[in-house]
Amino acid sequence: MPNSPPFRNEADFVEWIQRKGSRRVAGLSLGIGDDAALIKAPPGQELILTTDMSIENVHFDRGFHPPRAIGHRALARSISDIAAMGGTPRYALLSLAVSKSTSREWLSGFFAGLFALARKFSVAIIGGDTARVSGATSIDVILVGVVPDGVAVRRAGAREGDHIFVSGRLGLSALGLRLLATGASGQTPAERTAIRAHLYPQPQCALGKFLSKNRLASAMMDISDGLSTDLKRLCEASGAGAILSGPKIPAPSVSDSSDALDLALHGGEDYQLLFTVPQAKASAIPRRFGSLPLTCIGQMTKHRALRITTIDGSTQPLQSKGFDHFRRA
Amino acid sequence: MPNSPPFRNEADFVEWIQRKGSRRVAGLSLGIGDDAALIKAPPGQELILTTDMSIENVHFDRGFHPPRAIGHRALARSISDIAAMGGTPRYALLSLAVSKSTSREWLSGFFAGLFALARKFSVAIIGGDTARVSGATSIDVILVGVVPDGVAVRRAGAREGDHIFVSGRLGLSALGLRLLATGASGQTPAERTAIRAHLYPQPQCALGKFLSKNRLASAMMDISDGLSTDLKRLCEASGAGAILSGPKIPAPSVSDSSDALDLALHGGEDYQLLFTVPQAKASAIPRRFGSLPLTCIGQMTKHRALRITTIDGSTQPLQSKGFDHFRRA
Repeated sequence: MPNSPPFRNEADFVEWIQRKGSRRVAGLSLGIGDDAALIKAPPGQELILTTDMSIENVHFDRGFHPPRAIGHRALARSISDIAAMGGTPRYALLSLAVSKSTSREWLSGFFAGLFALARKFSVAIIGGDTARVSGATSIDVILVGVVPDGVAVRRAGAREGDHIFVSGRLGLSALGLRLLATGASGQTPAERTAIRAHLYPQPQCALGKFLSKNRLASAMMDISDGLSTDLKRLCEASGAGAILSGPKIPAPSVSDSSDALDLALHGGEDYQLLFTVPQAKASAIPRRFGSLPLTCIGQMTKHRALRITTIDGSTQPLQSKGFDHFRRA
Repeated sequence: MPNSPPFRNEADFVEWIQRKGSRRVAGLSLGIGDDAALIKAPPGQELILTTDMSIENVHFDRGFHPPRAIGHRALARSISDIAAMGGTPRYALLSLAVSKSTSREWLSGFFAGLFALARKFSVAIIGGDTARVSGATSIDVILVGVVPDGVAVRRAGAREGDHIFVSGRLGLSALGLRLLATGASGQTPAERTAIRAHLYPQPQCALGKFLSKNRLASAMMDISDGLSTDLKRLCEASGAGAILSGPKIPAPSVSDSSDALDLALHGGEDYQLLFTVPQAKASAIPRRFGSLPLTCIGQMTKHRALRITTIDGSTQPLQSKGFDHFRRA
């Protein structure tokens, strides 16, 4: 009976989540099960609030996204936003509109992925809302983080001459998605790496905190919709432009190098950090942060445009071809 | 072209929301437009967090809910949760998955309703997420409120002998919904009152604060899913039971009195407050709070069951027939 509810009633479902996701954490006065949750902000800290939807057939496809990955990715998106401010994630609320065709097994997998990532980042699930719907399943993860007063890094602080850095390798998630969508199961280690990067992206909280605490980044954001789109947003917020060096951009290893650059420039959902550093501080950025490579890919310019220099030394305008819900439609 | 996006791109849409919904409020460091919002909690206060979904064909029907009412109701649900804790609403985030068939006019109406209520309660819209979807429109409103340390009222505090109170009149919203769903436009003043109660419910923040500040309520929640369902939740959280006096329950004026009692017991979405008061403090509860009637409808019992005495003096078990997403399905 695929249409029978996976739980007896809403209380039963909420209790199940509560049993699995609750934990005692600092500052939490009241968790799941009342009209609202209560938290006490630590003194000397600001609170960071972010919310990210994950919608079936928009952000995920049940055909090739395992439920565990869907749960992981739903929370990873929000943790990445906290990382991009230089903060530490603490408390999550979960709004879950479950399609009537959803099985208890699917929900178990979904929550296993979400709770595993929550545990890894010491995030407590403190509340939420649930509904059953006829249409697509949709998830909204609300995340509260903390950051010491005045330390949060915004998008608007980049200035002419600042060096532009990215963490990790860009375009892996888009490559992994392409492989999954065409039914490829990952034949080579490189393909498996790309698929894993897509299904289980790792938010870069430790790097974000390192940069904010040491006041190294003048601006920061996470790369969720693709470098060309997200860098444009950073430039617009900062009232500046950027010039990138194409050959320096850390692209995936695929046989076609122009395809690799396209993936790195326009592929979204890598959840790596994009940050700018004043020239005087650029030497303080290590080449690796733990095992994570940090790469200088260009510089901020006064001229308010996005440009890219190619391997032959010519400079071209850089189009924003990343993800935009309203433009694509 | 109903399928053309109502906005050029996501940035355009976000900017439009920002222009309409932003306001300078105490404690807000950074609003819409970055990876996340930043707030500073006032000293001596706890933060209240709540999230409520409003989903097309579950919580509203475009056939008879005007967009303005949908926006109002989406925010009212969350404000009511803050009211039920005895707090003051402050900041909202809005996740909006807009159906592709949505017009700019519909969105304008929706936001007009949401922003009008936000202004009334001095709530600032500080962030959110947007997507366009093929299926139903869904809205998730995340609301942050404040409450002085240790003053928040929970569901779990009711004890044997406590008096049970409700604010306002119950069942009006369900009656209004029935009228709207059957195409009735509201012929009589009573019908128009019921329709208004359904479309534009008023969260009872002032009452919630009065009860929490003066430590009058031992337990409190809002009536969103119907008295019989919500009282059961309060009883379960408090480890107690309740006995209600049927004739005392403030029901709508409809010709059939048993229908009126059913509406008051099981009709949801009134967003009135349900609260319990220790016997020694019951005389401190006024009969009216401003223009809002407060009615004692029963008493908490040691026996863990819900019962109701009828007009002929007999006592019957009270079934929970309010709204439950998982049970109904």
